[in-house]
Amino acid sequence: MTLNYFDHNATTRVDDAVMEAMLPFFQQEFGNASSRHEYGMTARRAIDRAREQVAAAVGVQPVQVIFTSGGSEANNLFIRGAADSLKADHIFISAIEHPCVLKPAQALAQRSAERWTLHRLAVNQHGQIDVDAAREAMTAQKPALVSVMLANNETGVIQDVASIAEITRDQNKHAYIHTDAVQGLGKIAVDFAALNVHAMTLSAHKIYGPKGAAALIVDKRLLLKPLIYGGGHENGLRSGTENVPAIVGFGVACELAKARMTETAQHVAQLRERLEQGLVEMGAEIFGAGAARIPNTTYFALPDVEGDTLVVKLDKAGFAAASGAACSSVNPGQSHVLEAMQVDPLLARCAVRISLGHSNTMAQVEAFLSAMKGIVDALRSMSSLSF
Amino acid sequence: MTLNYFDHNATTRVDDAVMEAMLPFFQQEFGNASSRHEYGMTARRAIDRAREQVAAAVGVQPVQVIFTSGGSEANNLFIRGAADSLKADHIFISAIEHPCVLKPAQALAQRSAERWTLHRLAVNQHGQIDVDAAREAMTAQKPALVSVMLANNETGVIQDVASIAEITRDQNKHAYIHTDAVQGLGKIAVDFAALNVHAMTLSAHKIYGPKGAAALIVDKRLLLKPLIYGGGHENGLRSGTENVPAIVGFGVACELAKARMTETAQHVAQLRERLEQGLVEMGAEIFGAGAARIPNTTYFALPDVEGDTLVVKLDKAGFAAASGAACSSVNPGQSHVLEAMQVDPLLARCAVRISLGHSNTMAQVEAFLSAMKGIVDALRSMSSLSF
Repeated sequence: MTLNYFDHNATTRVDDAVMEAMLPFFQQEFGNASSRHEYGMTARRAIDRAREQVAAAVGVQPVQVIFTSGGSEANNLFIRGAADSLKADHIFISAIEHPCVLKPAQALAQRSAERWTLHRLAVNQHGQIDVDAAREAMTAQKPALVSVMLANNETGVIQDVASIAEITRDQNKHAYIHTDAVQGLGKIAVDFAALNVHAMTLSAHKIYGPKGAAALIVDKRLLLKPLIYGGGHENGLRSGTENVPAIVGFGVACELAKARMTETAQHVAQLRERLEQGLVEMGAEIFGAGAARIPNTTYFALPDVEGDTLVVKLDKAGFAAASGAACSSVNPGQSHVLEAMQVDPLLARCAVRISLGHSNTMAQVEAFLSAMKGIVDALRSMSSLSF
Repeated sequence: MTLNYFDHNATTRVDDAVMEAMLPFFQQEFGNASSRHEYGMTARRAIDRAREQVAAAVGVQPVQVIFTSGGSEANNLFIRGAADSLKADHIFISAIEHPCVLKPAQALAQRSAERWTLHRLAVNQHGQIDVDAAREAMTAQKPALVSVMLANNETGVIQDVASIAEITRDQNKHAYIHTDAVQGLGKIAVDFAALNVHAMTLSAHKIYGPKGAAALIVDKRLLLKPLIYGGGHENGLRSGTENVPAIVGFGVACELAKARMTETAQHVAQLRERLEQGLVEMGAEIFGAGAARIPNTTYFALPDVEGDTLVVKLDKAGFAAASGAACSSVNPGQSHVLEAMQVDPLLARCAVRISLGHSNTMAQVEAFLSAMKGIVDALRSMSSLSF
């Protein structure tokens, strides 16, 4: 097992306080929250409390929180659930959305009936959605549905969601706009009202909470059809027995994220500064360095070192890093994010992501740079031998 | 907190062995199974192992297991996923399906395009699907999709899924047939091949596993569209970061269910026999008593004692029971199962479900009967005063 975990954008270790809060709900307070006896009511109260904690993290009311099993489900619930409550029309997403926004949007555009027209908003070389190009595109074709992420999972680049929302609302006051804020929560301030959206996705396991809990935050006026029909849980928008321990853990993780955000941001920003200084000295290019980014993420390439190879070597040296987006590594291939940024495909193949967390230390960063230097020197000498 | 848990069809306590297996995956082996470093590979191996355990529980190959977040999601994945891979046609479900089969089927029948025709297969007074009536209905209108549950969550009545499957296949060799086996697993033998279906739903939290893990078992020839699109997890059929601890727990729970089934069935059958004897002596009617049932479930009514009231009084006396199906108690109302059995609505309002588990004892059953007698005598004397 590697000792130095540098892949916090993929998932995080469950925090001790989160674990402690979850534990009673597996074997003691194990009731079904729909049951009317004391076991059920205890579970229901725990969910109510978690709903308040999640709502408070982004400045909304508890009734606006729809719990789901994960960020992918929440994004699909918005895309498909909103589309199915409207007539087929124009949907706009950014070119750098996570596959769990991109693919359901593509599915809307490929279906046999009620087929939507999909538009992808371009990004500039820094990985930022081009607001002027978005205005032009949305003036040419009025948007009905829009989804743009708050922070990109690969580059960490923060997007101007509020401006895209304003353009959307100017063009069509009935349009729905959503942001996938999964990579933003806990790293930068996330305020539902300030972003001016109708829906927002949050996920527990990116903020030291458990896998298996996430939320779609909704404007109360948003019309949605459920993705999962059944017993009518979550105001009829997401049926299924609530995952009580995971939801409880999500609530606590939201509280911790809010309480620790400023301190963690300062800490990881310091680590990243040293990390990037060292990487640049080795000849690395840092993607998105010219834009505002979440403070924990470095996405870099060493022009002659293949990313997958580097990640494997780093793993053996005790450092867990990612090549491309871990969440979609089941389908490896070139990063669509770097493609949208018009990065040379040869350089894109060298991309490696480091995403830091509050438990990382400067000593780990120094050890990483030292290990990197050894690996890169060895790879370069091998590669020079082969020419 | 009530001490005597008699609501195992709603949910179960996580078994000690399941908990022990899950624990390392929250804080030590917490990786994202899609990551290529050691944290990720450890998570992937754990999921592979659980997939084998779940597959073995119902006699299929691991590749046939699609993990989902719950039984409701798995049922929706079949209903909507299969429907969307076919042209709109006739769908047959039984009149006693859980809402998470009934509602997605109704949604297919209500949509604006590609609208399906929904047929409900009748049940007899014992709560069994009427096989002759099903043959007649499926001869009149050829089925394309069929979903019939293996054991009903309220009555516990076991359905003749294999016969319905045979009729379906006789009428349309291209039809897809599914069974929701959530209430069967661990209580009776569940064999995918013997039931002759194309898909089957299983859930962890009904068999002493955690909430948050379930599976749709599929025939490899079944065509399905995903409900959740994204990174391409679960062979592209269910995207989203895998809930590793819950999946690991599900695997162990399946092993335990298989190992303990015979012994548990004998134990709870004995308890139920005494329970029903005592209830009948008090004047109770037992629903489905004339049919083969899973051995842990008693669904009864005392003609002059309202079910909700009884459940509240029992809770105060230390016994957790259910009025109607707990999973849909968020939408209270008359049981559609009893309605389909043509039970008098006044009697249906008196329905209470007791569902036993392996940890229940004969002493608990005797204490329950004694408490029941006191509660019922008090309620009857109050009700006689009011007339």
